[in-house]
Amino acid sequence: MKKVAVIMGSDSDLSVMNGCIEVLKQFEVPFEVRIISAHRTPNTAHEFASKAIESGFGVIIAAAGKAAHLGGVLAAYTTLPVIGVPIKSSTLDGLDSLLSIVQMPKGIPVATVAINGAENSALLAIQMLALSDDSLAIKLAEYKEKMAAEVAAKDEKICREVMS
Amino acid sequence: MKKVAVIMGSDSDLSVMNGCIEVLKQFEVPFEVRIISAHRTPNTAHEFASKAIESGFGVIIAAAGKAAHLGGVLAAYTTLPVIGVPIKSSTLDGLDSLLSIVQMPKGIPVATVAINGAENSALLAIQMLALSDDSLAIKLAEYKEKMAAEVAAKDEKICREVMS
Amino acid sequence: MKKVAVIMGSDSDLSVMNGCIEVLKQFEVPFEVRIISAHRTPNTAHEFASKAIESGFGVIIAAAGKAAHLGGVLAAYTTLPVIGVPIKSSTLDGLDSLLSIVQMPKGIPVATVAINGAENSALLAIQMLALSDDSLAIKLAEYKEKMAAEVAAKDEKICREVMS
Amino acid sequence: MKKVAVIMGSDSDLSVMNGCIEVLKQFEVPFEVRIISAHRTPNTAHEFASKAIESGFGVIIAAAGKAAHLGGVLAAYTTLPVIGVPIKSSTLDGLDSLLSIVQMPKGIPVATVAINGAENSALLAIQMLALSDDSLAIKLAEYKEKMAAEVAAKDEKICREVMS
Amino acid sequence: MKKVAVIMGSDSDLSVMNGCIEVLKQFEVPFEVRIISAHRTPNTAHEFASKAIESGFGVIIAAAGKAAHLGGVLAAYTTLPVIGVPIKSSTLDGLDSLLSIVQMPKGIPVATVAINGAENSALLAIQMLALSDDSLAIKLAEYKEKMAAEVAAKDEKICREVMS
Amino acid sequence: MKKVAVIMGSDSDLSVMNGCIEVLKQFEVPFEVRIISAHRTPNTAHEFASKAIESGFGVIIAAAGKAAHLGGVLAAYTTLPVIGVPIKSSTLDGLDSLLSIVQMPKGIPVATVAINGAENSALLAIQMLALSDDSLAIKLAEYKEKMAAEVAAKDEKICREVMS
Amino acid sequence: MKKVAVIMGSDSDLSVMNGCIEVLKQFEVPFEVRIISAHRTPNTAHEFASKAIESGFGVIIAAAGKAAHLGGVLAAYTTLPVIGVPIKSSTLDGLDSLLSIVQMPKGIPVATVAINGAENSALLAIQMLALSDDSLAIKLAEYKEKMAAEVAAKDEKICREVMS
Amino acid sequence: MKKVAVIMGSDSDLSVMNGCIEVLKQFEVPFEVRIISAHRTPNTAHEFASKAIESGFGVIIAAAGKAAHLGGVLAAYTTLPVIGVPIKSSTLDGLDSLLSIVQMPKGIPVATVAINGAENSALLAIQMLALSDDSLAIKLAEYKEKMAAEVAAKDEKICREVMS
Repeated sequence: MKKVAVIMGSDSDLSVMNGCIEVLKQFEVPFEVRIISAHRTPNTAHEFASKAIESGFGVIIAAAGKAAHLGGVLAAYTTLPVIGVPIKSSTLDGLDSLLSIVQMPKGIPVATVAINGAENSALLAIQMLALSDDSLAIKLAEYKEKMAAEVAAKDEKICREVMS
Repeated sequence: MKKVAVIMGSDSDLSVMNGCIEVLKQFEVPFEVRIISAHRTPNTAHEFASKAIESGFGVIIAAAGKAAHLGGVLAAYTTLPVIGVPIKSSTLDGLDSLLSIVQMPKGIPVATVAINGAENSALLAIQMLALSDDSLAIKLAEYKEKMAAEVAAKDEKICREVMS
Repeated sequence: MKKVAVIMGSDSDLSVMNGCIEVLKQFEVPFEVRIISAHRTPNTAHEFASKAIESGFGVIIAAAGKAAHLGGVLAAYTTLPVIGVPIKSSTLDGLDSLLSIVQMPKGIPVATVAINGAENSALLAIQMLALSDDSLAIKLAEYKEKMAAEVAAKDEKICREVMS
Repeated sequence: MKKVAVIMGSDSDLSVMNGCIEVLKQFEVPFEVRIISAHRTPNTAHEFASKAIESGFGVIIAAAGKAAHLGGVLAAYTTLPVIGVPIKSSTLDGLDSLLSIVQMPKGIPVATVAINGAENSALLAIQMLALSDDSLAIKLAEYKEKMAAEVAAKDEKICREVMS
Repeated sequence: MKKVAVIMGSDSDLSVMNGCIEVLKQFEVPFEVRIISAHRTPNTAHEFASKAIESGFGVIIAAAGKAAHLGGVLAAYTTLPVIGVPIKSSTLDGLDSLLSIVQMPKGIPVATVAINGAENSALLAIQMLALSDDSLAIKLAEYKEKMAAEVAAKDEKICREVMS
Repeated sequence: MKKVAVIMGSDSDLSVMNGCIEVLKQFEVPFEVRIISAHRTPNTAHEFASKAIESGFGVIIAAAGKAAHLGGVLAAYTTLPVIGVPIKSSTLDGLDSLLSIVQMPKGIPVATVAINGAENSALLAIQMLALSDDSLAIKLAEYKEKMAAEVAAKDEKICREVMS
Repeated sequence: MKKVAVIMGSDSDLSVMNGCIEVLKQFEVPFEVRIISAHRTPNTAHEFASKAIESGFGVIIAAAGKAAHLGGVLAAYTTLPVIGVPIKSSTLDGLDSLLSIVQMPKGIPVATVAINGAENSALLAIQMLALSDDSLAIKLAEYKEKMAAEVAAKDEKICREVMS
Repeated sequence: MKKVAVIMGSDSDLSVMNGCIEVLKQFEVPFEVRIISAHRTPNTAHEFASKAIESGFGVIIAAAGKAAHLGGVLAAYTTLPVIGVPIKSSTLDGLDSLLSIVQMPKGIPVATVAINGAENSALLAIQMLALSDDSLAIKLAEYKEKMAAEVAAKDEKICREVMS
């Protein structure tokens, strides 16, 4: 199976991105985690993205805050789908990273998820890989059913509590 | 090859989404275009998304404006990757549709592209399909090279014009 | 009397929506509380809204955060008035849920109250029911008078304290 | 049947609010149109709202732009449901009127619809009146079906055009 | 000397507005503090503003949060200058109250100061009263000199500390 | 009578500020119009504001766009009340000038009116001058009555037109 | 003298950036104009910035719209000062490019000017070069004086026109 | 070597600007720290900026919050490059100071860095001085290498930790 790359612009993003790593482990999808900065280690970014296909990656997840260029910089060097996760930092509530990631110009898309949307970046990557992997597609369906069951259980529990 | 679904919330979105359709045609990816409203034809949305996998679709592109629920509603009924295109309407410059699409809760991602980012939604869909289709991957690499060549040509032309 | 449905997208919304439940109890309006997610339990949302009229509901209150599609999704399946409560979550200060709820397209309104405006959602529901229930209308008038009296009491108290 | 009041803060709002008037006429709901300014004719606002119930009104629609206080000012003097329509003016794209209307404090709700959402304000008023008027409820259901049919027709037409 | 009215929409605004009261006391300007809600005690607002001139007031300061209509409602009933203080509440960081206060329509100005700008509302009121009161004008000049001296003292102190 | 100074940061602001000049003429208040840039002619700004009191001015109106420092710079050099008019320029819809003017730090208020609120800046200046000029106070009351009458006339006219 | 590099992400930015080129010509500063896309020609960006010092450049001006990564990408590969010009495109009024450029993380600054601030990017570059070039410093002082004179001339002209 | 001036509008900005001072010390660049308020000590601002060149300064860093006029006011009186640091204060998350600093009109640039971007303001100043100081240019290159090495070290460490 193709691997998922989880790239963070800074190690401070790890606390948020653990949510992504958990989901990938849960689905038993092979992945690698890297700290690569678009601005501080641009050569590593260049090299990583250029060789991502031959290194066996299928999807790249890029998480970054503020002027979040990481997703765009990686996407510039590969034809693999790149998923961008805007990280909320201490000012502007994540709006800066959201706009820096999602407003990509024509020709170089970055698939953007919600601010701090770590889990969804993993699920989106898995959805992409599941296009050619039926066992993953089945796991996704099961995951969806489990989510629904959890909500249904809470639905029942809270109704009882509130009404009693 | 799996098909791409291009779903619009309103026929008024077509003028923007023609950019998506052009790219899909250029890459010779099979696709279907539909007008389905999350709010006005919710049963069609439900039915379409529920059967999307068995109907042969691999990726769903959902374009909508204002309180743009279409992507989320389709994603609720399928495990296929759903790409959301926020359409700019007459107020708020597309910020409302961007936030309505990208800020999806945990468990149900929508891969969001730029406001009016029709072409990029198609390219992103193609990148996903290319994960299991080497000929598409080659076309994407060629597309990237062609874009680079076009920029390089403009670079040369404008340098000459400005400096003369 | 017709019942009010208080639907939350997540059980984490309950701490805010308790303000709504309190007001409904205070006015002795019959109500039911449900956890239904537009994205995680879409079939329940569909089913609930489709049968809301025959189940004896008169008004639906839908509270959700982030890309808050719940109100719109319920409104798609019923002709009952739907009141939307944008819930503030950890990013963007509730602006995302506000815009996702209020900017509904032509044909499917959602009556939106303030971010975290739980009490007002209940009052608005009661105002609607009071259109055909004179005893409720009287209670609303009393509630308004009581609010005015409370402000007047504070007015007097603070004037004295500050000026002394 | 109770009447709907359509109040505008300025006659310049009429071009937008014609959409509201059209829907009310279409549903044959009795209504009155007024130009009342919260700031320029506050006594008229006070008087109108105070007597709205005895004047036979069931719902008040208030449309205003910029610092749009009209809805709140009317709601202060009545227990009838007040629907607020934020009007987009020449700056800030309607965000100022949206926030001025929707962010009402605890105790005095204004049911807010989308910026320039004239049609939806009428539909919301009709939904409220339909709570005690079955013929209106039937008309609303027919309206919903007609909308769905229109979207379905466009769906079919555009699919054919694009694919051919 | 004419009095300054300090009107708050809620007693929860007092913690911010103490800054205003302090400045008024420091300048020995006569003032009254009131809790008057535009929405909960509209008749009091109406009555207060209508009689403000004959009650001996020269300037009205109105502090309110969220959909802050208080300043506009008071200004509607008087020709006295009204100063609006947007109060930051728990969502939207004060932007809602700022826009609700400052974006007043043609004909009814509200002199708006910064979000939570309590001290400046008092200074602005004093500047207005000083137009016909030379002793106040002198106090304002002294206040300005004292501020400058305080900054100069900090300038000297910090330079020394940082450079040592 | 004390004069009103109408200062613009650029001659391009004149088309908006004509609304201010018209009102001042209508009220027969003496005024002077100046083009003074906080950034391009700072010495003139300094000199003007420092001598404004002795030059016979009572109020200063400062209109500027973008990073609109003019009001703050003038206020730094005088104890006269300064009214700021945020001018909408080609980007950001006036939000930049609004925030640059209204968010003044403690100690130096600028009385801010709506974006492009030229007429209201004049009315606010007149309200200030009227504190010590009864004939102006009477004119303001007449102006308010005339506005109310105009709205009432439109109210009657439109009601008739719409209902017929 | 060291050269200024004027880099645009797209040839569509030229209409705005002509303002920059005009100023550089006026000051007789040597410069080169290039079209280099951070995303479409990343290798050219990499190569240009890496060799900018040895190519004789002193300052780099980078103009781009939307998710404007160009300035950051160039700054990643050089220690020369990089000036960023956010270009307004068809949505979000330039806020996306402003935030994408200015919110750079610690370690890699981009000196940001106003949205569409082409002239100021040139002046800022000249100010930097003038630090070691007295003749440029003199030209800047003359430019400042000329600006002041132009404002003063308009001041006189408009005063006369308005007052007559 | 020319000195860097670090000007703060208030001593409360020091906690953020210590990051700037640290970097300047680390690069052994001579600097002076001052507390000068554009509004409270405008004469000091005027005097400082007018004499900055002859006082031996090469670059001015100006840090301020809210309606942050300091950078623009200093730039008005000098041809030296002025770097603006928007300081986040208690409301609006720094957006007000960012826009007040960056949106400078044509003719008077302020080189703006990120909100609270103290370190980057120092680095930008050093980049400017390095244009005519090769030893500083070498230190900048070393700083860049050290940053890259730090990221690389974290990259290795975290990969190991996460994967184990």
